[in-house]
This record gives sequence, C-alpha cells and structure tokens, in this order.
Amino acid sequence: MLAFFSISPLDKGESLSEYVAASLDLIDKSGLPYKIGPMGTTVEGDWDQVMSLIGECHKLMRSKSQRIATSIKIDDRVGANDRLTGKIESIEARLGRKLER
Amino acid sequence: MLAFFSISPLDKGESLSEYVAASLDLIDKSGLPYKIGPMGTTVEGDWDQVMSLIGECHKLMRSKSQRIATSIKIDDRVGANDRLTGKIESIEARLGRKLER
Amino acid sequence: MLAFFSISPLDKGESLSEYVAASLDLIDKSGLPYKIGPMGTTVEGDWDQVMSLIGECHKLMRSKSQRIATSIKIDDRVGANDRLTGKIESIEARLGRKLER
Amino acid sequence: MLAFFSISPLDKGESLSEYVAASLDLIDKSGLPYKIGPMGTTVEGDWDQVMSLIGECHKLMRSKSQRIATSIKIDDRVGANDRLTGKIESIEARLGRKLER
Repeated sequence: MLAFFSISPLDKGESLSEYVAASLDLIDKSGLPYKIGPMGTTVEGDWDQVMSLIGECHKLMRSKSQRIATSIKIDDRVGANDRLTGKIESIEARLGRKLER
Repeated sequence: MLAFFSISPLDKGESLSEYVAASLDLIDKSGLPYKIGPMGTTVEGDWDQVMSLIGECHKLMRSKSQRIATSIKIDDRVGANDRLTGKIESIEARLGRKLER
Repeated sequence: MLAFFSISPLDKGESLSEYVAASLDLIDKSGLPYKIGPMGTTVEGDWDQVMSLIGECHKLMRSKSQRIATSIKIDDRVGANDRLTGKIESIEARLGRKLER
Repeated sequence: MLAFFSISPLDKGESLSEYVAASLDLIDKSGLPYKIGPMGTTVEGDWDQVMSLIGECHKLMRSKSQRIATSIKIDDRVGANDRLTGKIESIEARLGRKLER
C-alpha cells in the first residue's frame, strides 16, 4: 500500500524545517521505498511496516513538541506493487507526455 | 490523542453505507470513546489503541474490496484528555453560544 | 456536497481555541447548514457556496497568522441532500442501533 | 500558497488512471506551477488561482461520475514563494544529503 503523510508541530512558530528534517532522516534510513514531496512524503509497504514507521516519526515529533498534527492518506490496492512511480507513469502513458514530478 | 478517520472502498459503486456500517460496528464495540460525524469518525486514545482499531477497520474493509482509500487526521496534545466534547465546549464558551453538533 | 474542513495557525502556540472560534463564528452566521466536530466542521452546499465560506475563514485566519494549514475533504454525490444527518442515520439503520454523535 | 489535492470517483471500479489523467491534463495546461506525486498533485498560486483550478478539476470529474471524493491540504505562509522545490531543498540542506524525490 501507499501512505502519504505529514507531521507538524503547532508550537514551534512558522519555520518547521528543523523538525521535518528529523522525520525525513528516520524515513530515509528506514529502508522502505519513499518519495518526498512539497506537502508530505509517500512510503510504500504493508500496513505494519508503514504504520510502524509513521508511528516512530510521530513519537519523535511528539517528544519535541507539546502539540502535533499528523495527517495520513492511504491507497491500498490488492496485488499492486511499485506504485511510487507506477501510478504517475500510468497517467503519463494515457496523456502521451511527461508531467512535472 | 484524537484521530479522525474514514475508510472507503473504491470498487463498490456510489452507495457505501453497508461497508461503512461494518467499520462503525467495530468502532462502537471497541470500548474507545468516539464520535461519528457526516464525513468520518473521531476516536480518542493513545497511539497504539487508536492505530490498532483503525488497522482492524482498514483490514476488514480490505478483505471486502480490491482497493480502499483511508484517511487519518491526528491531533496529539500533551496532557489533554476528554477532548471529544472538550474542544467544542471550549469554542462555545469563547463565542458565548451553542453551535450545531 | 459535504465538505469537512479545519484551519489551524502554526505560529500561535499549542492553544488555538481563540483562533478556531473566529472561524466558527463566520460558519455559524453563514446560513449554510453545518455540524461542528472535535476535529473539524462539515458544511453542506454547492461548490461555490462552500468554497466561498471556507475561503473567507482561510483569509480571516491568514490575516492573524504568518502561516496556516487548511485541510478540506469533500464528498459530492449527485442528487444527494440533507446528508449532514442522513449519512449517519443510514448507518444507524443498518446496524439497528444508535451510535455516539 | 501550496495546495496538495486529489480527486477520485467512487463508482468507476478499482482502475482510475483514465479519470485521473483528465484532471492532470487540466492542471498541466493551467500554467500554474505544479508537481505530481504518487498520491496527489501540489500546485502553487494564490487562493483564487488554486481554488479555481481545483474547482474545474472537481467539476470535470463530477460530470463523469455519480460520486466523487476530493481532498485538499493547504500550506499558506506569508511572503513564501517557489516552495514546490524550496521546501524539499531546505530539508536536504539540513540533512546534508539528497532525498528521494
């Protein structure tokens, strides 16, 4: 399955990159395939793998902040793999041109 | 923490209440405090309690559908409890009137 | 259509009820049917009505904050009306019991 | 501001790329800067530009489907521009290495 997620502290003011970087360090070292985007990161794996990683990131952020907001959006399709790039390639194939990634 | 979530099958046509009812049956029997709303259900508990329940609902829906979309929105604030109604009461107290629940 | 939404400032510290109350005041006075919940508010109307109201709330919050996070989740079904309570009643009818609202 | 969004029909079965491609065609031709990702597309612009584009995509999808689900996640920060790649570069600079995009 694919899970897009973001985790933000609400008590650190408007500049958050220091805190977001700590999450990305965990994600990048997790071994799960992922893609970072401007509004969140998408990881691919089964429920337990993905939720365990998001839980680690959530708990790390919570240890640094009094209040955090986490959002997660999951697409779980039977028998589907390698979808981090596969879904985009499928759209590009239909349109017959490359899109901005 | 509070977690608002919804789980929808994408391959069952436009009427979904049969499938959503199966999730609500699990939630209602879980023992965790919750509130159902028109666009999703909010449960209160710690990460492991809440994610375990959402995982059960997700897996039940996945067993009935080829593709599902799950979204989760979490508000985790240190030392905060009884927030299912407390957050709304706090807004009502500020406005000095009752809102539509 | 139904739209569930929430708008949060990121630079105001962990207590947000003063800011959220200003949005709810606009929503409550808009004349559109709505239900407040612990994690956001759902309004019912057509695209232009609903997005105009959310835009007003967003701009009001933006005028008070250097950085805000807004999330919106829409369910748009042809010919469907009075769904703020109708969707929940439909689930309750299937389960044969009342749920926590 | 940045807006990440996705629009899915609920009555078209599990394969959606034909429908999603129609949205991406509109986005790609809109002239607004954007990045497609595995779970949605992020566009950059002001409220009216961005919401007008999302509204066009929503209405196009609604014309083809009896029921659609749209989700939108906005990050609006005063004076911030060129954030489609800027936010990611800022994280990479903190970590001192490149991430998977």
